[in-house]
Amino acid sequence: MEPQQKSDLRSFFEPRSVAVVGSLREGQGEGYRVIQNLLHFGFTGNIYPINPSYSHVLGMRAYPTVNEVKEPIDLAMVITPPPTVAAVIEQCAQKGIKAVIVGTEGFAEAGEAGARLQQQLVDIAHSNGMRLIGPNTIGIVNTSNGLVTNPYLVDYDRIWKGSIAYASQTGFVGAQGQPLENRAYPISKMCDFGNKCDVNEVDLLDYLLDDSETKAIALHMEAVKGGRRFMDTLRKVTAHKPVLIFKVGRTEQGARASASHTGSLAGSVRVYDTVFKQAGAIQVRTWQEFWEIPKVFAYQPLPKGNRIAIVTLTGGVGVVAIDAAVEVGLAVAQLSDATVDRLVSFHPNLSRNPVDLGPIMVLTEDPLSILETTIGAVLDDANVDCATIVLAAGIERWASATVTMLDRLRPHISKPITIYIYGTKVSMTEQVARQLEAMRLPTYLELETAVKALGIAVEYAKIKSNLDRKAAY
Amino acid sequence: MEPQQKSDLRSFFEPRSVAVVGSLREGQGEGYRVIQNLLHFGFTGNIYPINPSYSHVLGMRAYPTVNEVKEPIDLAMVITPPPTVAAVIEQCAQKGIKAVIVGTEGFAEAGEAGARLQQQLVDIAHSNGMRLIGPNTIGIVNTSNGLVTNPYLVDYDRIWKGSIAYASQTGFVGAQGQPLENRAYPISKMCDFGNKCDVNEVDLLDYLLDDSETKAIALHMEAVKGGRRFMDTLRKVTAHKPVLIFKVGRTEQGARASASHTGSLAGSVRVYDTVFKQAGAIQVRTWQEFWEIPKVFAYQPLPKGNRIAIVTLTGGVGVVAIDAAVEVGLAVAQLSDATVDRLVSFHPNLSRNPVDLGPIMVLTEDPLSILETTIGAVLDDANVDCATIVLAAGIERWASATVTMLDRLRPHISKPITIYIYGTKVSMTEQVARQLEAMRLPTYLELETAVKALGIAVEYAKIKSNLDRKAAY
Repeated sequence: MEPQQKSDLRSFFEPRSVAVVGSLREGQGEGYRVIQNLLHFGFTGNIYPINPSYSHVLGMRAYPTVNEVKEPIDLAMVITPPPTVAAVIEQCAQKGIKAVIVGTEGFAEAGEAGARLQQQLVDIAHSNGMRLIGPNTIGIVNTSNGLVTNPYLVDYDRIWKGSIAYASQTGFVGAQGQPLENRAYPISKMCDFGNKCDVNEVDLLDYLLDDSETKAIALHMEAVKGGRRFMDTLRKVTAHKPVLIFKVGRTEQGARASASHTGSLAGSVRVYDTVFKQAGAIQVRTWQEFWEIPKVFAYQPLPKGNRIAIVTLTGGVGVVAIDAAVEVGLAVAQLSDATVDRLVSFHPNLSRNPVDLGPIMVLTEDPLSILETTIGAVLDDANVDCATIVLAAGIERWASATVTMLDRLRPHISKPITIYIYGTKVSMTEQVARQLEAMRLPTYLELETAVKALGIAVEYAKIKSNLDRKAAY
Repeated sequence: MEPQQKSDLRSFFEPRSVAVVGSLREGQGEGYRVIQNLLHFGFTGNIYPINPSYSHVLGMRAYPTVNEVKEPIDLAMVITPPPTVAAVIEQCAQKGIKAVIVGTEGFAEAGEAGARLQQQLVDIAHSNGMRLIGPNTIGIVNTSNGLVTNPYLVDYDRIWKGSIAYASQTGFVGAQGQPLENRAYPISKMCDFGNKCDVNEVDLLDYLLDDSETKAIALHMEAVKGGRRFMDTLRKVTAHKPVLIFKVGRTEQGARASASHTGSLAGSVRVYDTVFKQAGAIQVRTWQEFWEIPKVFAYQPLPKGNRIAIVTLTGGVGVVAIDAAVEVGLAVAQLSDATVDRLVSFHPNLSRNPVDLGPIMVLTEDPLSILETTIGAVLDDANVDCATIVLAAGIERWASATVTMLDRLRPHISKPITIYIYGTKVSMTEQVARQLEAMRLPTYLELETAVKALGIAVEYAKIKSNLDRKAAY
């Protein structure tokens, strides 16, 4: 059967009503927890608990099946035992539901019998014009309408609304496993494809291309189905929005491990590398990069060139930053004479990039004012396209003064920057990082990631301008 | 002049008395702060504040010069303005002090005039049989005797005593910049070489080779002086203790940045790579690896082979762990039939490595007991040499039960393991990580680093056994 219209994914992410089919046992039942999360994160639509053994749950009426619900239902989250799922999906079809997420585990990832069960679900869905996400998934998140279909306990209150869409083939990328609130990742949508029996990256990319709330896409992938369509769609999206891909199962052994947990084959790494490159996607290499690098796109314009300046408080960090910059394809900016003159008026050592304020910070009564002027001067320099600023979140007084200084400087910053922050206390460093990000300054706890994020922003800017140029002919 | 005996570095790290020469201005003076840190971290020897403008500081008598001190002085920490340092060192020589750390900045790293001043210090030292660390350094730490010569405020109470020596060419690797207490790095000694005008890696390696408190050495390096001696010494040390090197200034531009902040040239990256390899040292690639990987050597025996098992709570993490393992030269262990039989009795899906307990954790009433049995079974398997265990520090009840379970299991673990811990709250994840490390289980917040640490342990085990074999001929 042919792929559906992209409007179909709107029923997944923007449903006016959700049926939750599964165990409603208090606190423990998967259905109960999905409903709990929908309430907790303030889902704006109607919720219909479905379970023949309950009349009420969490203050809501429960229905034996979806067919007893009179109102229309846009989305069903189904998390019943494997042998029962096909019948539930039949009922959803009868009710006219067009979007179903199957959370249940125990399908293709569990062996041949599971794979046959999974094929049944696909057959029912396709013969009824219905789309399926999963099975074996925690489902989706939309921070605009409070839709969180997670069947696990999420022990915090907030998933930050922002412009990054995260998608994956594992529930590990989910609110129940990640410190989404603490790290304040700016999220628009999330999607765990699970076994990816129907809805896959192609559908999601298509949807996100038109999603005005999504500015960048981070994709964890184990395997792709439909290579040609994937490549075409990917190319279409990367012309408008950066797509960062964390392709795992890169080794033969990793690919085998992947097959055993999602029931799909990972394929050759070289083929993927080529496809991603040709389609204008950019690869990230670790979980940390997958989570952290996208935010460089959330708050700031793209760099206009690849010349980076480093403003640091310690020379040793400057050296590593320069190594990291060069390795990711950035050029070390040559500061203009005017900038050098300004900086040298503070200290004769400040004539070079990286600008190492270390020696001067201990000599002056007002180091923050020099830091402020230096960051301003460096970013004003026409030879500089972007910058990584190194900050310390050591003692509290200094940390809060730094935040105030950047708050003052922020409106004057028009080029993309990243901040690397280090400190003597983990909690203080995390806290200051979040304060800076609340000011839309992407802040990193790992120096190399802070620099690499700018490198990837430059890489995407080049991809986009090449595509724009082609489009102009 | 010829290099000194290695006993000379004992005056640096194991002094019975320390003179601190510098500003004693309350709270702000560098000398004052050094003394504050010595007191704060419980230095066990005598402290002599030296400054002609003060008669007392911090409840201690101050002396105009070192020569007014009647008792012998083993070590002087000098942090006076650049033009005065030579005279102070002359006085130290007259007093018979054999070890001097020069904290002062503004020597070779500040230009030619500074380089000439620095040469003066070296000349005075060498003609008096004195060794110098620095200039431009925060000095050293010895966790055995509370020696912390840091001239900056350290706003926490504890540097954890352990068996890793960290050395660097930047003060960034220091108690005033790093969360040493929060992260509980197990430290024996620390040394910031600064401009490295005299004491360098060769001297330190020589000293650490015989230091019974040091089991592994982590070396941040920008440049090496005396390539041949360095290589010989390095080879001698790696036969007994792992040496992990974070060589920075790897790019030409990074090397130039290095020259400008420490006044030394970084040299060709290929030469270094070859030298390190031939000498049996292992390179790490990021700050995070520099800090985190050494601890794999602190608590556990070396692996007897390269076959890794992964016990995970989520399949997606298993795939990435396997990729990381293969990329660092580990082999994916093939579990024995007996182990498979045991695991399959819990769940039919548990027949493979990575052992993904995810599907079973939600089905059982007592998931921790299954986790405990699984870890035990996997580590008992003769086909397994080491393991990375994936743990969740999600909700508090689960986290503390996990810690208790591992505390029970710990005495039965005889093979090296690393733990990767993830969670929904950063503070909880950090806290549980420290509880596990207090049980001598090296715990990582980054999956790939946890796996790579075992890879590096295996690499060192091979280096050592090759050297042992050669030595046997």
